[in-house]
Amino acid sequence: MAGGGQLARMTQQAAIGLGVNLRVLAGSPGESAARVCADTRIGDDRSLDDLAAFAKGCDVVTFDHEHVPGDHIQALEAAGIPCRPGAGALLHAQDKLIMRDRLSALGAPCPRYGDVADIEAFARETGWPVVLKATRGGYDGKGVWVLDGPDDDLVQDLLARGLSLMVEEHVPFRRELAALVARSPHGQGAAYPVVETVQENGICVEVIAPAPGLDDELAAQAQRLALEIAERLDVTGLLAVELFETDRGLLVNELAMRPHNSGHWTIEGSRTSQFEQHLRAVLDLPLGDTRPTAPYVVMANVLGGDDPDVYSRYIHVMAHDPGVKVNLYGKEARPGRKIGHVTALGDDLADVRARARHAADYLRWGPR
Amino acid sequence: MAGGGQLARMTQQAAIGLGVNLRVLAGSPGESAARVCADTRIGDDRSLDDLAAFAKGCDVVTFDHEHVPGDHIQALEAAGIPCRPGAGALLHAQDKLIMRDRLSALGAPCPRYGDVADIEAFARETGWPVVLKATRGGYDGKGVWVLDGPDDDLVQDLLARGLSLMVEEHVPFRRELAALVARSPHGQGAAYPVVETVQENGICVEVIAPAPGLDDELAAQAQRLALEIAERLDVTGLLAVELFETDRGLLVNELAMRPHNSGHWTIEGSRTSQFEQHLRAVLDLPLGDTRPTAPYVVMANVLGGDDPDVYSRYIHVMAHDPGVKVNLYGKEARPGRKIGHVTALGDDLADVRARARHAADYLRWGPR
Repeated sequence: MAGGGQLARMTQQAAIGLGVNLRVLAGSPGESAARVCADTRIGDDRSLDDLAAFAKGCDVVTFDHEHVPGDHIQALEAAGIPCRPGAGALLHAQDKLIMRDRLSALGAPCPRYGDVADIEAFARETGWPVVLKATRGGYDGKGVWVLDGPDDDLVQDLLARGLSLMVEEHVPFRRELAALVARSPHGQGAAYPVVETVQENGICVEVIAPAPGLDDELAAQAQRLALEIAERLDVTGLLAVELFETDRGLLVNELAMRPHNSGHWTIEGSRTSQFEQHLRAVLDLPLGDTRPTAPYVVMANVLGGDDPDVYSRYIHVMAHDPGVKVNLYGKEARPGRKIGHVTALGDDLADVRARARHAADYLRWGPR
Repeated sequence: MAGGGQLARMTQQAAIGLGVNLRVLAGSPGESAARVCADTRIGDDRSLDDLAAFAKGCDVVTFDHEHVPGDHIQALEAAGIPCRPGAGALLHAQDKLIMRDRLSALGAPCPRYGDVADIEAFARETGWPVVLKATRGGYDGKGVWVLDGPDDDLVQDLLARGLSLMVEEHVPFRRELAALVARSPHGQGAAYPVVETVQENGICVEVIAPAPGLDDELAAQAQRLALEIAERLDVTGLLAVELFETDRGLLVNELAMRPHNSGHWTIEGSRTSQFEQHLRAVLDLPLGDTRPTAPYVVMANVLGGDDPDVYSRYIHVMAHDPGVKVNLYGKEARPGRKIGHVTALGDDLADVRARARHAADYLRWGPR
């Protein structure tokens, strides 16, 4: 797995169970996955030399993030090293404009989007505000700007910084959903229950599985849409489709082709965790059972607070709720940084949400 | 964790989630846990020098097996390194005669036992067969001999090989049970549901959680007994109490003070796995919820068969039953060796047992 972040770290837990030797390419020995993987190679996952040295001897290469250049992935594939997802699929998780063009051609419902050259003309059709996006490299709300009116200075400044931009309508959504599926090279697909994701300041703070009160037909539609995108884009491994639920139905927001924050609940909340599923998919093994282990599962992200010593707050969280599961990523707790997550499960949604929320808040802030 | 076997390997999965840096002392880089732990030290866990070098900088030392000499553990403790369990407690999992004497003094129900000097006198009281045991070093049926009548040649031969021996009555049990509990230095205790263990040729092949049809009062008695032994022996970490269910009630067979084969079902089958629970206990964190995640959970050990390529048999097992969980230990598949386990869970015990059995058998033998 190229990339040494928390996704690779949690993939290692699944790899240990499967008896799969997971090699990780990390930028430094202190990275989240490097701390826990015996077979860690240190290198730059944007350097073809480092990637090639890392990939030598691997049965298959997969990715912890979208930032490995597509031409490097193509070079690995040309050298006979299976990359899953392949460069051709991953491109649609790397470049938002290419993704929009492709999904629109496939008939997948998307927000209206347009060229940054004439934002005012675009806004005359969609109304203000509009959303300005960097086509590449954004995450957690970075690379996204909401424009309430024309702001040519900002656009020129971003273009001058070398960013490639696009514009989208500002979708008046009811809530955000995510549909997570897996697809293997063999063509087998498997879908997890559709979840609701709650964002604050562009960062996912909570995931509720399944999405409460979601119409069965809409849920099935979201799963079919994700499976169809996976097939048409030839995705191998996981595909997370972030969706807006709107008055005019579902719209695709973003794609990710790897384990995804919206699927962390599956570690305790599904018979097969997304990390195990990703490994099974990229190794072309039959996919695992995606059934949930409880009526409601809620995951809350733990963000860093002012006091970096998260462990001092373990005792309260564990004593308060012996059933809550804490997952920490071995990352330094800088304010606002995702350093872990907690998962609670049970029959009563309000109770499960409150338990997850309390644990995440306490790990961040301590008593308040 | 001193020792690099599969228990340390599975403890690493739990440590990753908790954000705990697990250091392992393994005999070689190829050992089960060494393959998956970034912080592996290679050394001999029966050498005080190696143990001391390994323990330097650790917050607490715990054990993957019972074979670290007690005086070495005492030396580490004297040097200010917390060892959990401590030498004083672990002694009762290392020496069966000391365990029997202590448990008898505590009033815990045990099989009758005696001195090897006069087996015939002992057998006049208990009847033949009797069970000859090495007081130290046995496992998986090794170090145990069933005598149908006097066999002085065997006894003299074993004594000449330096073994310390004891004799026990051959208990006519209905079945074998195991009670798994955790105890923290703080004194908190937590008990898992009592399980049935099924042995073949002295090796555990199957664990059923909870023990089917077990009388509630007997189950509670087994849990209380295990918690009381943990408290009286000052155990910190896990304690597994192997029990015989007999016409005259429960009798203690063996003790183990570490994650135990009878608790592997907890990885998928309990809200808190035994490996996480052991870490929480030895780190003096509040203990986790021991509730099961399904009405029945069955674990079957995977033994090595004639063909060492277990992975070639993955596809059938995973395709046949997407819900069965395979855990492999990264060990070479020698015939009869424990190389992994599988877990199935559900509502119908017969079905769950059949699923686990099929998967374990197939991984061993392939199609037959």
